[in-house]
Amino acid sequence: MTPGLLVVVSGPAGVGKGSVVRKILEYAENIVLSVSATSRPPRVNEVDGVNYFFKTREEFEAMIKNNELLEWVEYCGNYYGTPKEWVCREVEKGHVVILEIEVDGAVNVRRLFPDCVLCFVLPPDYNELEKRLRGRGTETDESIKARLARAVEEFKLIDRYDYLILNDTVENAADRLLSIIKSERMKTSRNQSIIDKFKNINRSE
Amino acid sequence: MTPGLLVVVSGPAGVGKGSVVRKILEYAENIVLSVSATSRPPRVNEVDGVNYFFKTREEFEAMIKNNELLEWVEYCGNYYGTPKEWVCREVEKGHVVILEIEVDGAVNVRRLFPDCVLCFVLPPDYNELEKRLRGRGTETDESIKARLARAVEEFKLIDRYDYLILNDTVENAADRLLSIIKSERMKTSRNQSIIDKFKNINRSE
Repeated sequence: MTPGLLVVVSGPAGVGKGSVVRKILEYAENIVLSVSATSRPPRVNEVDGVNYFFKTREEFEAMIKNNELLEWVEYCGNYYGTPKEWVCREVEKGHVVILEIEVDGAVNVRRLFPDCVLCFVLPPDYNELEKRLRGRGTETDESIKARLARAVEEFKLIDRYDYLILNDTVENAADRLLSIIKSERMKTSRNQSIIDKFKNINRSE
Repeated sequence: MTPGLLVVVSGPAGVGKGSVVRKILEYAENIVLSVSATSRPPRVNEVDGVNYFFKTREEFEAMIKNNELLEWVEYCGNYYGTPKEWVCREVEKGHVVILEIEVDGAVNVRRLFPDCVLCFVLPPDYNELEKRLRGRGTETDESIKARLARAVEEFKLIDRYDYLILNDTVENAADRLLSIIKSERMKTSRNQSIIDKFKNINRSE
């Protein structure tokens, strides 16, 4: 009774979605993080197929052309994207694939993989988001302002998402995400084989 | 971030849905059991508005006529039904109302209260259902056969439900129902006020 699932997690910079995703991976339950493809060269210790699927620019551009990516971006001169085939294979195995991407990408994934679940991680309020960004202590004032301005743009698209996850603490937010995963796997629409089993009972009296 | 919710729980006789509902009421979280209206006279210790809303036949028939019931049945010469107004008031307060009713009633509730969540409790398999019915030790062989035949009819309508809850143990099933409740309350479609709050952030730089 455990169908596979593709779960997209988005949210503004500083909201802590990375921590929430890392926490939920500890819970196991067949939850895996999506492995991206990239044209960036591997760094020391990075393993192909674990950290990334490493591709040449030409290979990556062929993947784009052949619709082999659920979403992709070009960032600092390198391509990054999510290989559709890998995700489909994991979901078919009954695994939950978590994909942490930005709002534009999420909309694309929904188009190419309609059965996915879109989750948006929210801070308790906007001031808290600014506090968390400043709390990192690694960003310039300018960078923080740019990220906050971007957050406001992202908030405009939250009704494209299925679920809103409040991140007051990482543990609470991870519990919330786990409830969503458990609940989505119980959806009638994801359990046709169980429906068939119970619909086709033949009572021989 | 806790919108109210109407949760309908159905399932065949013997599946243990009553135990699952009782268990989830222990978890609190603003979960209440729906109070039915009935034309049956109160028994000793039964309190109006707690166990039932007690009505005369004439009063009940007026409620039917005025569309004041989400669903109703006549059983052994008495009417039983769910008063729409009471449910709406509880949901508006932010409470989760649990309504344990049969399949026909559930379909009616969906029609009159489209935002409700329909859950169907399933046994691990059909043989287990028979075992549980026989295990009660209170039913005749004839009654058990009738209930099993009815279960087969009910299974034919499970795709009208939103969620399938496996009842292997009462604790597991109650946990599953709780995940559904938590998850449904995080749905974007149930949280317009939060969306508005984040969409209308006015950054003064």
